Amino acid sequence: MSGTLYGIGLGPGDPELMTLKAYRLISGAEVVAYPALEDGESFARSIAADVIPPDAVEITIHIPMTVERGPAQAAYDKGAADIAQHLDAGRDVVVLCEGDPFFYGSFMYLFARLAGKYETEVVPGVTSVTTCAAVSGRPLAARNEVLTIIPGPLDEADMQARIAAAEAVVIMKVGRHLPKIRKVLDALGLTEHATYVERASLPSQLVVPLEGAPCEAPYFSMILVTKGQDPWLN
Amino acid sequence: MSGTLYGIGLGPGDPELMTLKAYRLISGAEVVAYPALEDGESFARSIAADVIPPDAVEITIHIPMTVERGPAQAAYDKGAADIAQHLDAGRDVVVLCEGDPFFYGSFMYLFARLAGKYETEVVPGVTSVTTCAAVSGRPLAARNEVLTIIPGPLDEADMQARIAAAEAVVIMKVGRHLPKIRKVLDALGLTEHATYVERASLPSQLVVPLEGAPCEAPYFSMILVTKGQDPWLN
Repeated sequence: MSGTLYGIGLGPGDPELMTLKAYRLISGAEVVAYPALEDGESFARSIAADVIPPDAVEITIHIPMTVERGPAQAAYDKGAADIAQHLDAGRDVVVLCEGDPFFYGSFMYLFARLAGKYETEVVPGVTSVTTCAAVSGRPLAARNEVLTIIPGPLDEADMQARIAAAEAVVIMKVGRHLPKIRKVLDALGLTEHATYVERASLPSQLVVPLEGAPCEAPYFSMILVTKGQDPWLN
Repeated sequence: MSGTLYGIGLGPGDPELMTLKAYRLISGAEVVAYPALEDGESFARSIAADVIPPDAVEITIHIPMTVERGPAQAAYDKGAADIAQHLDAGRDVVVLCEGDPFFYGSFMYLFARLAGKYETEVVPGVTSVTTCAAVSGRPLAARNEVLTIIPGPLDEADMQARIAAAEAVVIMKVGRHLPKIRKVLDALGLTEHATYVERASLPSQLVVPLEGAPCEAPYFSMILVTKGQDPWLN
């Protein structure tokens, strides 16, 4: 009998924001897989480091950071094949995922390759979006507000049109797109309604009004925008 | 010295989807507060029931389900006053919140009343949105997709315009708005791309294509819509 594939959301970075279910599955894991940069650094593994059993087999999936999709897809092909060997041998495999596996997560590429063939369970996790709201003391959305989540790489015109049409807005994956995002929010008169958060829940966390944001933003940074009056104030 | 107010996200319903931090804070709590319906039923309390210490003081905030906002606001006024008494006496108060406190959560009304006067910490939780994606095996958003979260009570024309302009869509708080939502999705030709989920992560969970959804939906139900090709499939 084949093993089960688990895609496990670890939350935004603070290991204590892992769920009880993630903790149970990781601490009992025989095989643990995770994405890593080409130099081997894995944010996902760092979140779960104290929970992974010392004798667990570890599969590192090295994801090349190229603009073309081919090399990354080849890396997921290889990672999926490595995982499948264990599943075929009847061993469960736990895949560690930053945040939530199905919220802009790379687990979906393994899921697409393996879920049709093996029993698969996805364990949701706390996203960086609600964590940024929590640490900045700003509710994300209230009552009948529409919430729009916009990835930073969106092109300028599209981003501006979408923010203009939106109510509450979260801009994710800010990183090198910060100058473009500032320009868009300035053009819309929303800069003073924007909060910048980087590395939410980690010791290096930073929460400041957008005007006070650093010139260089890391990939794990986000901007929250509320328009007009906060509807939760009364 | 005053106590600290904690707003704690409990996740979508399965107690194992609580975070380690929520577990630690609730299991050590002296005073626990939570919203409840007028008959006393509290979904938040039911999630944390096995973690609340038997000798903890419990504050039930009875929220009247009226269309006018006045009665509910009066209930939050009273709840905030009850909580403040404990904070003034130097006792920490843990407020239990379904899902995430700042994601369409009622905690924001207590936060608005108390956070200016008392030390306050918001502990994010797993939302029903990513849980619905996990249990239905459908990634919410990939790469540079924009994700739009729409509350079911939105009026029909507004809902239709927002879904038409969106990429990935989640419709929350479906409940009695299901017939209207069906009509909107039919008009947009999106019914076959829609998945209905109720009570995600609970034993009574239901996941079906929208065509197979029941006629009556509970408040805790949601519809996920993806348009066209799933971008994560390759």
